Amino acid sequence: MERGDADLGVKQTSLSRFLDGDFWAVKNELRMQIAESPLFQQRYDLSLDEMRDLTFERLKFILSLPLVQQAFREMEFIINTPCDSAAKMYIGNAMKGNYAAVFAQLIINGKSQGPHCFIVPIRDQNGNMYPGVKAIDMMYKEGLHGVDNGILTFNQVRIPRENLLNKFGSVSPNGKYSSCIQSTGARFNAMLAALTPTRLALTFQALGAMKLGLTIAIRYSHSRRQFGPKDKEEVKIIEHQTQHLRLMPHLATALALTFTSRYAGEMLDEDVYHNRDLVNNRPLQALVAGLKAYSTWENLSCLQDCRECTGGMGFMMENRIPGLKCDSDVFVTFEGDNVVMLQVVVRELLAQYTRQYEESPVFGLLRNWTSSVADSLRTSFLAFSSDKISSLVFFLKAVHFRERVLQRGLAARLYHKVMKQKEDFFYAWNSCLHHVVTLALAHIHRVTLEQFALAVESCPVPADQSLLMELLELCKLVKDDALKVVSAFNIPDNTIQAPIAGIPNPRAHWAYYPPPQQEGDSNVSKKINAKL
Amino acid sequence: MERGDADLGVKQTSLSRFLDGDFWAVKNELRMQIAESPLFQQRYDLSLDEMRDLTFERLKFILSLPLVQQAFREMEFIINTPCDSAAKMYIGNAMKGNYAAVFAQLIINGKSQGPHCFIVPIRDQNGNMYPGVKAIDMMYKEGLHGVDNGILTFNQVRIPRENLLNKFGSVSPNGKYSSCIQSTGARFNAMLAALTPTRLALTFQALGAMKLGLTIAIRYSHSRRQFGPKDKEEVKIIEHQTQHLRLMPHLATALALTFTSRYAGEMLDEDVYHNRDLVNNRPLQALVAGLKAYSTWENLSCLQDCRECTGGMGFMMENRIPGLKCDSDVFVTFEGDNVVMLQVVVRELLAQYTRQYEESPVFGLLRNWTSSVADSLRTSFLAFSSDKISSLVFFLKAVHFRERVLQRGLAARLYHKVMKQKEDFFYAWNSCLHHVVTLALAHIHRVTLEQFALAVESCPVPADQSLLMELLELCKLVKDDALKVVSAFNIPDNTIQAPIAGIPNPRAHWAYYPPPQQEGDSNVSKKINAKL
Repeated sequence: MERGDADLGVKQTSLSRFLDGDFWAVKNELRMQIAESPLFQQRYDLSLDEMRDLTFERLKFILSLPLVQQAFREMEFIINTPCDSAAKMYIGNAMKGNYAAVFAQLIINGKSQGPHCFIVPIRDQNGNMYPGVKAIDMMYKEGLHGVDNGILTFNQVRIPRENLLNKFGSVSPNGKYSSCIQSTGARFNAMLAALTPTRLALTFQALGAMKLGLTIAIRYSHSRRQFGPKDKEEVKIIEHQTQHLRLMPHLATALALTFTSRYAGEMLDEDVYHNRDLVNNRPLQALVAGLKAYSTWENLSCLQDCRECTGGMGFMMENRIPGLKCDSDVFVTFEGDNVVMLQVVVRELLAQYTRQYEESPVFGLLRNWTSSVADSLRTSFLAFSSDKISSLVFFLKAVHFRERVLQRGLAARLYHKVMKQKEDFFYAWNSCLHHVVTLALAHIHRVTLEQFALAVESCPVPADQSLLMELLELCKLVKDDALKVVSAFNIPDNTIQAPIAGIPNPRAHWAYYPPPQQEGDSNVSKKINAKL
Repeated sequence: MERGDADLGVKQTSLSRFLDGDFWAVKNELRMQIAESPLFQQRYDLSLDEMRDLTFERLKFILSLPLVQQAFREMEFIINTPCDSAAKMYIGNAMKGNYAAVFAQLIINGKSQGPHCFIVPIRDQNGNMYPGVKAIDMMYKEGLHGVDNGILTFNQVRIPRENLLNKFGSVSPNGKYSSCIQSTGARFNAMLAALTPTRLALTFQALGAMKLGLTIAIRYSHSRRQFGPKDKEEVKIIEHQTQHLRLMPHLATALALTFTSRYAGEMLDEDVYHNRDLVNNRPLQALVAGLKAYSTWENLSCLQDCRECTGGMGFMMENRIPGLKCDSDVFVTFEGDNVVMLQVVVRELLAQYTRQYEESPVFGLLRNWTSSVADSLRTSFLAFSSDKISSLVFFLKAVHFRERVLQRGLAARLYHKVMKQKEDFFYAWNSCLHHVVTLALAHIHRVTLEQFALAVESCPVPADQSLLMELLELCKLVKDDALKVVSAFNIPDNTIQAPIAGIPNPRAHWAYYPPPQQEGDSNVSKKINAKL
């Protein structure tokens, strides 16, 4: 069943609902409310201060929406202030906020209990700084101009005992410290675990940017014509082999990441619902860390291809892609640098590897490395005949095999360096860092491919299922159906705003390209529109 | 011999002179004059109009320098206005210029003689538009904010006959057309050939951005410390394996491209000196097209790694890398999209291939494809034993072999499609486009590697030669010598301006990291400074 909404350019289809998942109705409602607000018109002519003010207004608008208010009433808050104890840089809202959540070493009677989170008042209601608090504005960045990042420093600022957030530890009136977690290291890990939801949120942000960029680049590629056979009409640029070979893998990845991030989100919900501590769910922490790295890198690569595939038009701010690139560039080093995130993944993989062989430390069972390399995995790999190379099952097994080989190889290398050569663990690990990163990416690629395949299997509408299967197997037909997929991303025209995607813009009428026609579909949607 | 110039942070060494080539003295003079001018302080707080005015002032300053004035007196001008006959978009200086060089179809008595270049007055000295001329401002872009790109349209604008630039064709007072080149197609190619120097200039611009980005990222990596063995001092981040594995290949590529672009520049000079027409030097056109594509893509990839390797600091405008990224992003689609540039390379390679076998058309000799695949090249490849894999000679032969295999394969595919299957050439070529792009890159990689190897061979100072050889072979020692190389790029501190590279900046004192110490070198330079 399709419903055309001519005003906002949103067309709900079975596929768009499948991609949105259980919360499709809520998402649609929010999409519409944001698309209809003039606050969300893109602006390129504002000074830094004006842009920061606009961002503040946008945030207020979103927080005031009934659906968001309701969600806040129902939600477990998690403090997300990034912990950079050395310099306290990059604090968002540092130039306007009234309170800061500060991670600091809790020292009682000269003894440190590790970092804890404190609520520190920094400004009064009129914006005057409290004594001992100093804020430095970090000013101009590559993007995210609406966010006022700054540096806070504290000089002997006194706060009441109650301002310690006491989930992991508290101090009694007579100065006695108590905590449900004994070691300071474990308490620190518990606090770092609280970053998991933020990291997953970054994956969703990266996905949003990818989907918007792909929508613009694919619509333009189906509209703009260039080159062609002699004395005939020029072809649509999507027909150029390099154009679809560059864009289609990103489209498939955007879908794969949609399903994988939903899977991680469901695991997180499950933990929250059962009131379990995230710190005990290390596989989830590792999954989210890996997803954060993969999705934010993939987003940059995708947006760069979208920019290049739209030529000079893609360099114009009005066409959105440059702004998306500059704003999301920081994601790859933010909330945990991607290279560090991949190391989190591998530490968990090695821990699992050890448990699997029921020995510890990590390198226990690696002594029989020589016997394990020629195991059944390799045999099953070689059992495939070459004509099956394109099949999904082969591909799934191949990526699984790659991961296992990398995992065993890394464990063997570390075992040799640390146990045999007696190298310091830091240097041993560092000399394998390229291997570590490769393994982590192989792992997250495998998980993502599996989740994509599972989602396609569970898709209820056969036509949608075939379309997703085409994307999953990346066959050449995909380019013609790509318009259907980006339209199922369900981004309102008012949110797309790019004239090259067929959305008129009075500030850049010269950049307008008519919206592309999906062949075979145009009649259907005309009929539906006529009925409404 | 070394000369320390403490004020400007420039230290001339034998290596810096070798990297600068014959014109090292002129380059140094220009570097100093630009570094000393306050006009070139980076500004991030300006509106679009203010940024455009500043850019105009900077241009006037450079054009007024005696060395530049002298160069203009000695130089063959070439009109570089990009030819986009459909829309006339992206015209630089469209909002301020008095004249435009316009490529338009020359139609005499209803017959087109192909595109020619005309000088059209667009504004008077007071900035008023002439009748029939309209300019549309393209406004906000990802970068290059100082360049006012616009769209010009002409409605029956009359210009005198003499305003036709008549290098390739002229019109007599009685309306007769004459040209030294007979076919309109050949005349069009002659005009496109005039883009060659501009494309080479883009390679130099990309190189400049890479060198600056690398200087900043490598200096910071040798200064900032993070992580380390337990209970010991944290290590410099350059020590992290991922950090040097990401940065060192870019440093090597920057050197390789320095020598290859110089080689192309010398070929171009040679032609200009002998007053030869560029149109007849198709190998040079293809080399420059390939270099443009390779260097501009490599620049983006390099700057992205520099940005990520400097973390959140690299996201701050004051640290220069974001601005370099945004400004040079357009190079990959500007003055000929990179994918189109690579097709120029391959058309020339196929033409050479045909000539080599003294047959035409292109696909002539491919009939004996089956006999040629097993030729001596393959044999010579397999003759290498595996222990030589790291040697330069092996590497040179390997990239040569890869190129030849790709070339033969492509020729065979095209021959089969066009001659046997009778496919239209456009569709046959399009279906091989990925192969075409791969071949073109293989070609330009081979040429670049060869030029790098030749330059290292000709390096007069043994110590410099060994250092360059390390970069060429990318051995692990390189990271420690990387500081020497970036210092030989000879970029004045006033031009670097980034506080994370150890250049104090009062606007961002919080970002300052002390300049890195080159071990073993610090004493030498201290001594030299003491003498001055």
